[in-house]
Amino acid sequence: MKNLTSEQDFLALIDKYFPSNNGHVTLGRGDDCSILRINGQLCISKDLFIEDVHFRRSYFSPADIGYKSLAVNISDISAMGGVPKAFALGLIVPDGLDKEYWDSLLKEMAKLANKTGLILAGGDLCKGPTLGISVTVWGEPYRAEGLDSVDKGRFLTRGNAKPDDILFIHGSIGLARTGLLLLEETGTFASKEYPASVQAHLRPEIRTETGKALSASAAVTGLMDLSDGLARDLPRFINQCETAFGAEISLPTEILHDEILKYAKAKNISAEEHAFRGGEDYALFGAATADKFEELMDTVDGIIQIGTLTDKPEIILNGKKFLEKGFDHFSG
Amino acid sequence: MKNLTSEQDFLALIDKYFPSNNGHVTLGRGDDCSILRINGQLCISKDLFIEDVHFRRSYFSPADIGYKSLAVNISDISAMGGVPKAFALGLIVPDGLDKEYWDSLLKEMAKLANKTGLILAGGDLCKGPTLGISVTVWGEPYRAEGLDSVDKGRFLTRGNAKPDDILFIHGSIGLARTGLLLLEETGTFASKEYPASVQAHLRPEIRTETGKALSASAAVTGLMDLSDGLARDLPRFINQCETAFGAEISLPTEILHDEILKYAKAKNISAEEHAFRGGEDYALFGAATADKFEELMDTVDGIIQIGTLTDKPEIILNGKKFLEKGFDHFSG
Repeated sequence: MKNLTSEQDFLALIDKYFPSNNGHVTLGRGDDCSILRINGQLCISKDLFIEDVHFRRSYFSPADIGYKSLAVNISDISAMGGVPKAFALGLIVPDGLDKEYWDSLLKEMAKLANKTGLILAGGDLCKGPTLGISVTVWGEPYRAEGLDSVDKGRFLTRGNAKPDDILFIHGSIGLARTGLLLLEETGTFASKEYPASVQAHLRPEIRTETGKALSASAAVTGLMDLSDGLARDLPRFINQCETAFGAEISLPTEILHDEILKYAKAKNISAEEHAFRGGEDYALFGAATADKFEELMDTVDGIIQIGTLTDKPEIILNGKKFLEKGFDHFSG
Repeated sequence: MKNLTSEQDFLALIDKYFPSNNGHVTLGRGDDCSILRINGQLCISKDLFIEDVHFRRSYFSPADIGYKSLAVNISDISAMGGVPKAFALGLIVPDGLDKEYWDSLLKEMAKLANKTGLILAGGDLCKGPTLGISVTVWGEPYRAEGLDSVDKGRFLTRGNAKPDDILFIHGSIGLARTGLLLLEETGTFASKEYPASVQAHLRPEIRTETGKALSASAAVTGLMDLSDGLARDLPRFINQCETAFGAEISLPTEILHDEILKYAKAKNISAEEHAFRGGEDYALFGAATADKFEELMDTVDGIIQIGTLTDKPEIILNGKKFLEKGFDHFSG
């Protein structure tokens, strides 16, 4: 199929899949800026998604790239308990990708955008050495009905959790990292024996509904998404708490995915530590007051208790001090 | 000087130069999202600034890169007549640049941010094959004092200009393109004979004050910034007007910079057409009603009349039809 040779070709493809204006984006693509109408607060995040850093074209289909580049940004909105509203898209376009490739990538990105209520507000496009996608996404607070204390909506930040608050996750940890390592080792062949791991790496689940439900619960004292793995993200969470300085984490094998247990056995490593290190889980991780935790478990499906915050400056994993750092896109 | 080897090194450098929160950015860097407080409207824009596409390290100093990567984004806010408020920064970091390099780049970016009132709200950081900077910037409407019709502020979009409206520019056209061509031809040596051209390419002027003054004038019916040159951007402006379909442009040599005349003579090309083609001028280009244009000229310094909008679907440059396309970062 033919190449896209001009900016116009690209914009036509983008217009084909992405609607432009709505009540939030009152002026869409095509001017110097987009114009948004906002009453109150907005949360905003920006992520880069760069070839051979965050993904490889050898085992990511164009549809996978379109999906994940937007999904990891939506995850930041979910982690604030926010409602995704719109995004801006920067595309760095290498030579040699045909129209069919871009059609597939943008179509899948648009499918996810439409599913989560995101409008493509604007962006930029240029050539470059490798495929790169830069997304800036923003959202509004979730306004739950019938809950007095939070009826104006709130964003779930990290700083308010306290010692003895219960720590929980929503989603798998370690599974995406397993998928990444296997894809790097054996390519797409990995999906035969480890389908869930590969899927977790290529297509992280969207958790906006859970984020909204958590923001509506007065029990929840803090939330973040696990992009670099619990080993690395947990200290970040704790660093922003005023009175909590450490955590005791309990990861029994029962809460780990079968494929993680299988992988750990094959590689002769600790499944629990592998899961704790993780990386690109895009699971939600949060804290909730102990007295209301049971109620939270009843209200929000899929919450898994994994530990408690403490006032001691140390991370305890399954009874032992954990000192390593986790996965990092920057240091590799 | 030593390299920056970890994300923490980078974040420390960023924290050194960029203040975090203010009344607009109520939660700054370090959480999943930044939180903004907004009453009413926001305009938002995103640009990519990629090595060997938008700049070369051979003749851009790190300070030039820090300046221009943010300046071209601020230009979009100026072109809306808006007040810059904050920005998000994505940095793609290649191997081999030392701490001194990044210090210089970020220091100059911060200088421009502070000068224009911009807070760095958040961003992302990763390794990559070449240096890349992705900025998303946003602003609020300018609320001029003592002007009834626009006292709530407005953004200057492109669609409201009409036939017989006068077209104007604020800034030089063709000068930055002259600088680019000379820098590509002779490297930094170009600045000896063509200092203004080189400066126009490396350090485009910020026109936020002019943008605000134009938004406060009821005469102005439309505004944009010239990123790809008048030849390419003028049709874009016209395409968004409901009743204007063409323009008559008059570019006498008197309004062109001396260096453009010198360059055109040396290359045996038409100075007027060279200026009209332009590229990366980051001048403001707008339309104003004829009856109030004199008043506008008296109010806003540096406005240069260059033509009128028409209802005929053609572009006339100095009496002749102009059919070519201008400069484009995508098609090259």
